[in-house]
Amino acid sequence: MRAARLHEYTGDVANGLTVEEIDRPEATASDDVVVEVEGAGWCQTDNHIVEGMWTDYVDQDLPMTLGHENAGTVVEVGDDVRTVEPGDRVVCHPVQTCGVCRPCREGETMYCESQAFNGLTVDGGFADYLLTGERSVIALPDGVDPVDIAPHADAGITAYHAAKRAVGDLNPGDTAVVIGVGGLGHIGLQCLDAMSAADIVAVDLKESARDLAADLGAHLTADPEGEDVATVVDDFTDGTGAAQVLDFVGADETTALAPDIVAAGGDHHIIGYGGHVHEPAQALVDGEFAYQGNIVGRFTELQELVALVERGDVELTTSRYDLGDINAVAEKLEHGEIDGRAVVTP
Amino acid sequence: MRAARLHEYTGDVANGLTVEEIDRPEATASDDVVVEVEGAGWCQTDNHIVEGMWTDYVDQDLPMTLGHENAGTVVEVGDDVRTVEPGDRVVCHPVQTCGVCRPCREGETMYCESQAFNGLTVDGGFADYLLTGERSVIALPDGVDPVDIAPHADAGITAYHAAKRAVGDLNPGDTAVVIGVGGLGHIGLQCLDAMSAADIVAVDLKESARDLAADLGAHLTADPEGEDVATVVDDFTDGTGAAQVLDFVGADETTALAPDIVAAGGDHHIIGYGGHVHEPAQALVDGEFAYQGNIVGRFTELQELVALVERGDVELTTSRYDLGDINAVAEKLEHGEIDGRAVVTP
Amino acid sequence: MRAARLHEYTGDVANGLTVEEIDRPEATASDDVVVEVEGAGWCQTDNHIVEGMWTDYVDQDLPMTLGHENAGTVVEVGDDVRTVEPGDRVVCHPVQTCGVCRPCREGETMYCESQAFNGLTVDGGFADYLLTGERSVIALPDGVDPVDIAPHADAGITAYHAAKRAVGDLNPGDTAVVIGVGGLGHIGLQCLDAMSAADIVAVDLKESARDLAADLGAHLTADPEGEDVATVVDDFTDGTGAAQVLDFVGADETTALAPDIVAAGGDHHIIGYGGHVHEPAQALVDGEFAYQGNIVGRFTELQELVALVERGDVELTTSRYDLGDINAVAEKLEHGEIDGRAVVTP
Amino acid sequence: MRAARLHEYTGDVANGLTVEEIDRPEATASDDVVVEVEGAGWCQTDNHIVEGMWTDYVDQDLPMTLGHENAGTVVEVGDDVRTVEPGDRVVCHPVQTCGVCRPCREGETMYCESQAFNGLTVDGGFADYLLTGERSVIALPDGVDPVDIAPHADAGITAYHAAKRAVGDLNPGDTAVVIGVGGLGHIGLQCLDAMSAADIVAVDLKESARDLAADLGAHLTADPEGEDVATVVDDFTDGTGAAQVLDFVGADETTALAPDIVAAGGDHHIIGYGGHVHEPAQALVDGEFAYQGNIVGRFTELQELVALVERGDVELTTSRYDLGDINAVAEKLEHGEIDGRAVVTP
Repeated sequence: MRAARLHEYTGDVANGLTVEEIDRPEATASDDVVVEVEGAGWCQTDNHIVEGMWTDYVDQDLPMTLGHENAGTVVEVGDDVRTVEPGDRVVCHPVQTCGVCRPCREGETMYCESQAFNGLTVDGGFADYLLTGERSVIALPDGVDPVDIAPHADAGITAYHAAKRAVGDLNPGDTAVVIGVGGLGHIGLQCLDAMSAADIVAVDLKESARDLAADLGAHLTADPEGEDVATVVDDFTDGTGAAQVLDFVGADETTALAPDIVAAGGDHHIIGYGGHVHEPAQALVDGEFAYQGNIVGRFTELQELVALVERGDVELTTSRYDLGDINAVAEKLEHGEIDGRAVVTP
Repeated sequence: MRAARLHEYTGDVANGLTVEEIDRPEATASDDVVVEVEGAGWCQTDNHIVEGMWTDYVDQDLPMTLGHENAGTVVEVGDDVRTVEPGDRVVCHPVQTCGVCRPCREGETMYCESQAFNGLTVDGGFADYLLTGERSVIALPDGVDPVDIAPHADAGITAYHAAKRAVGDLNPGDTAVVIGVGGLGHIGLQCLDAMSAADIVAVDLKESARDLAADLGAHLTADPEGEDVATVVDDFTDGTGAAQVLDFVGADETTALAPDIVAAGGDHHIIGYGGHVHEPAQALVDGEFAYQGNIVGRFTELQELVALVERGDVELTTSRYDLGDINAVAEKLEHGEIDGRAVVTP
Repeated sequence: MRAARLHEYTGDVANGLTVEEIDRPEATASDDVVVEVEGAGWCQTDNHIVEGMWTDYVDQDLPMTLGHENAGTVVEVGDDVRTVEPGDRVVCHPVQTCGVCRPCREGETMYCESQAFNGLTVDGGFADYLLTGERSVIALPDGVDPVDIAPHADAGITAYHAAKRAVGDLNPGDTAVVIGVGGLGHIGLQCLDAMSAADIVAVDLKESARDLAADLGAHLTADPEGEDVATVVDDFTDGTGAAQVLDFVGADETTALAPDIVAAGGDHHIIGYGGHVHEPAQALVDGEFAYQGNIVGRFTELQELVALVERGDVELTTSRYDLGDINAVAEKLEHGEIDGRAVVTP
Repeated sequence: MRAARLHEYTGDVANGLTVEEIDRPEATASDDVVVEVEGAGWCQTDNHIVEGMWTDYVDQDLPMTLGHENAGTVVEVGDDVRTVEPGDRVVCHPVQTCGVCRPCREGETMYCESQAFNGLTVDGGFADYLLTGERSVIALPDGVDPVDIAPHADAGITAYHAAKRAVGDLNPGDTAVVIGVGGLGHIGLQCLDAMSAADIVAVDLKESARDLAADLGAHLTADPEGEDVATVVDDFTDGTGAAQVLDFVGADETTALAPDIVAAGGDHHIIGYGGHVHEPAQALVDGEFAYQGNIVGRFTELQELVALVERGDVELTTSRYDLGDINAVAEKLEHGEIDGRAVVTP
C-alpha cells in the first residue's frame, strides 16, 4: 500500500515526507483493527513533527508514516473485537491505550502508561490502511462522512477538551476569550457556544478569521495589531476580565496577556504551543489565575464531539487533497494559505 | 496609640518602620469594628512591602501601619454590628469586603471589587488598635489564644487555601509534594495531612525544616542541594509523578521542576513568589499540568482553619516580640533566623 | 397603599386574599430599599400558602401580603445603600439575607440563617410598594421590562437553579428529561438548552404544553397518559436512561419513574412538590441515583438568569392582571386555565 | 474442587447453601484469570441473595456458587494477560467488566453494560478456585494478607465509595453522621476520618458498636433507642445539621431522619437497603437535601482502599470460618452474632 513517511527531521517541510510502497498492516493481536483510510487530516503538529520539535517529548523511530486524524472503514479485526466489524465506518482516536493501567481505568486515556500514538510514535493514517485497536475506534452515526469528521480525531477533540474544561466555570454573563480562530480555534469557539451561555470574544490577526468567528457566534472580535486586547476585554467585561481564556496560539505575546485579561480565579488554557510562558510568580498569585496546559481529548470526549457534530452544533470547513500532494499541504499550512482544515484522501 | 509605620520604601528592612504615636481608630461606619491588638504576625510579605515590591499590584498611601495577621479583643462596634460585641476575642481576616459585589455574593471575598487590605492598602495591626469590619472578624473558640492564632489570619489561610484546592484532587495512594517547609509550608503540610490520605514528600534546603516536615507527617523528605528532586519524586511515585505540588517558594528553580514532577492532569500551585515561571507552552501541553496561582484564603476558609486549629490538627510554632523590636524581626526573617512564626504583641 | 393580604388559611383560593389599604413601608434600616411594584408574579406556591401548606416549614404571621416575584422601581433607600438609588429599575430576589452568617458568606443565600422571604414570611409584592434590602435587588439591563422579568424572581430562578445543577452532569449525547412543561418547566427547558448540548425529552399531560416544549427545543415529547414514559426514555437513550431528570411536578407518579428512567449515577431533581417519594432503598442502591431536592435559586443565580434573559435565551409568556383581580388569578391557576405566567400589575 | 452453592431461594438461611464438588474453572478467554481462593468474606447481601431478594434486580441462574469478596493467589492466566501472573497475590473486585462500553471508558466500571458479578450473577468465591478477569484483580502490596483484605472487595469499597463522595463536601468544622457501625459502617467511619477533618457522629443501637465507633474516631455517639437522634445532631451542630449522612442501614426509620438531620445542601447517602424512603417531596425541596443511592465502589476505588489499608488508615476485625461451616455463618449474621467481618477460608 502507499504511505507518506518521514525519514529524517527537516526544517524544509515542503520536502518532508516521501510517498512510498510498504506492506499493508494486518490484525495479529486479539484487539487489532485495520481501517481503510478515507480521510486523514493534516495538522500544525505534523509540521512540528517534521521539524523534529517532538523529539524531546516522545520516542520516534524513523521512518514513520505520519497522520493522526483518521477516519475510514474497518476491513479486518482481531479475534476478541466485539464492538466493530468489517464494513463499519469509524473515526479513529489517535491514541491506542492499554485499558488496564490506572489512568485508563479512570477514563484518562490520554495518560495511558503504555500508549501508542498514530503518526507520532507509531505509523499513522497518511496511507491506504491504518493499524489501530478496538479501544480507539468509534462507529459513525449514519450521515456523517469520514472525510468531514477525520480532523475531529485530533484537532477537534483537542479544542473540545479545552472547551469542556472551560465550560464548567462559565456562567451566563461570564466572558470567554478565544485567541486564534484557526483550525482548532474555530471548533473550540463552536463548542463553547453550544455548551454554555457565556459571551465570547475572539482574537485573531486575520480579518477572515475574525469574520468567521462572528459568523460562528462570537459576540465581539478583536484585532491584536490594531487594538489593545487587554483594553477590549476590560471594557467588554466592565473591568472583571474573562472567566476563561482559550489560547490556541500559545505564543509569548498571547500567554503574556493572562495577567491583564483573566478574571480572578480564572484559567488561561494553553492549547497552542508556539512559544513560552514567562511571568513573575507574583502575577499568578495576585491575580489567582492558572496557566492550564491542555493535551488531546480523551476517548470519551471524541464520542461527545461526534454527538455534537451529529446535532449540527459544530461545523468544519475542509479542503481535500490527494496523498501525493501531501508536502504541498505542509507548505501551504506553513504560509497560512489553508482555509479550514486540510484532509488527505488516500 | 503606638503604631509601626512605613514612611518610604527601602531595601534596608532593618530600618524600614518607625514606631510612633497616632490617633486611635474609632467605629464611625455602621459595620466598623475596633480591635485591641494582642498578636500581629510578621510575614515575608511585610519585607516585600517595605521593599516596594507590591506597588505594581496595589495602591499604597504612605505612611501606612503594616500588619495583616491580627487577633485581639473587640473594644468598639458600629451601630449595625450584630455578630460580635466588645469583649469578644477575634481573629481578623486581613481583607475588608463590601458584601454586595458579585464576588462577595459568591463567597469569593478575596476577589471583592472594593476591598481594603490591612497593612497592605490600609492601616494594619502593628499597633495598639486596629480598625476592621464585621465582615472580617471571627470569634475565637474557648481556649484558642489570640497570639497563637494571629499568623493564621494570612500565612495560615494562604497555606490552607492552596491545600484545600489540592486535596480535592488527592486520592489515597496519590502523592503531594510540598516545596518549602517554612512559615506557610509547615501549615500547608499539616492541612494536607489532616484533610487527605495522600503521601507527602517535603522539599527544603534546611535540615531543620526537613526534620520538622517528617515530624508533621511527611512520608519522605528531600534536600534539593544533595538530591535530584525529580528523581526522588519519580522513584517515590513509580514514575507517575505528584498529583499535586504546593510550591511555597515560587523561585525560578522551583517552578522549573513542574514538567518533571507533576503527574499528568496535576497542578503546580504557586504560593510563594520569589521568582518567575519560564516554560515552553509545549511542556504544559505535553504534561497537561497547570501553574495555579494562589492568593490569600477567603473568609470562610479562615473559619475552617480555626476549626482545624481547635481540633488540634494544625500546630504553629511562634516566637513573640515587642512592638519596639519590629525592625529586628524583619532583619532576622531576611537572614532566615526566625524559627516558626514571629508574632508582635503590642 | 393597596395590598392583597391573607387573613386566614383556606382551601377556597377563589376567596383567599383581601385587597385593603395599609401604610406604605419606609426605609428605616441602613440597607433598606423600598420598591414601587410594577409587576408581581402569581405562583402555584401562592395557592399553597393560601391553603396553609407551608405552615409546617416556616413561621407566618397573618395577616400577610403575599407576592414573592417582584420587580419595579426603587423609590427610597437606607443610609448605607451604595449599589442602587431611587429611579433604578430592579428585580427583587424574594429572600432578604443577613450577609454575615456562614451560608451567606459562602454565597448560599437560600440557606441564610436569619432570612426573611417576601410573601412567605414577611409582606410581599401584591401591593403598591415593597420593602426589601440592598442584598436582594438587581438593577435591570436597559430594555428589560420589570413586568416581564418579575416571574423570574422565583419561578425563573427555581427552574434555573435546578437546570444549572443538572447541566454540570450533562455531556453532548446525554439526555435530560423535563417532567411538567408549565410555568417553571418551560423556563427550565430553555435553560438546559442554552447551557448544554444535551438532548431533551419533555413529558406533559397537556398537548399544548408538549407543543410549547417542542417549540422551545425539546427533541422528543411524551404524553404520560398515552405512552409509557419509561419505554420512551429507554428507546430514546438506547437503554442507558436519562443522565438528569428535572421533575417540576413532584407527584407520587412522577417520582416513581426514577428507577426506570434515570441513568446510573444520575439525578432525579425534585422541584415541584405535589406528592411524595415512595421507593425501596434497594432501588436507589441498585440504580445509584439520587432524589435531589431543589429550593429557590440563590441571589447570584438571579443575576445569571437576568443575563440569560438579556441574551434572549429564555422567553416567558406572561398574562397581566389588575391587583383587584388577584383571587380570580388564583382560581384560574387552580383550574389550569393560565397560559404562561400570571403577573399582577399594581 | 469444593464449592458452596445455592440451589433454591429460601428464607431459611441456616440451610441455604450446599457444599459440593464441581469442576475447577480454567482460563479459556484471553483475559481470564483463575485465583486459588484464600479468603472470601460473607456479607449481609449473601443472606439477601439466599432469600431471593435480588431476583428483581439481576438475572441469576441457579445453582450458583456465592461469594463476592475474594482474595487469593493467581494460578492461571489467559494469553493476553499482562499485569498479573501465576503466584501473584490479588484481591478481586467482584465485577468483571467489558472495558469498551462508555461507562467503562469513563472509569465507571460499576455501570458496565455487560458485566458479570461474582456470587451474584456468576459463580463466586466460596470455593477452592474462582474464575475472574484481568480487569478485576489488584496485586497486593507486600505484607497485606489476602484473608484480611478479602472483605474490602465488596463491603470495603462500598463503604469507601460512599465516604469518598461525602468527603468532597466536608470541610473542617462540618459534621458527618454515620448510621450503623457494622461491617460496612465501621469501615466508612475510618475512611471519613482518614480523608477529611470533619467531626463524626456515629449512631447505632448496640453499645459495642458505639464503643467501636468512639475508638475509631467518632467525636460523639448516639443510641437511637435512648436518645432523639435529631436533637443530638441539632445540638452538636448548633442547629446547622450534618453536611453529610452515611446511612448504612437504610431502614424506614433511618431514612426518615433526613429532613431533621441533614444540613441544607447536604446528602443522605443510602448504602444499606433494609427498608424504604417515604417522604413528602416538599421536605426535599424545603431542606434542599438529596437521598443519594450508593452502589459498590468502582475498580479504581478498590485500588485506593488498598492504599488506605497499606497506610494503616483502615482496620478490619475478621473472624475466620471453614467452608463447611458456611451456613452457620449465615445464621450467626442473621442473629447479629458476628463481630467484625466473617471470612471463609477454603
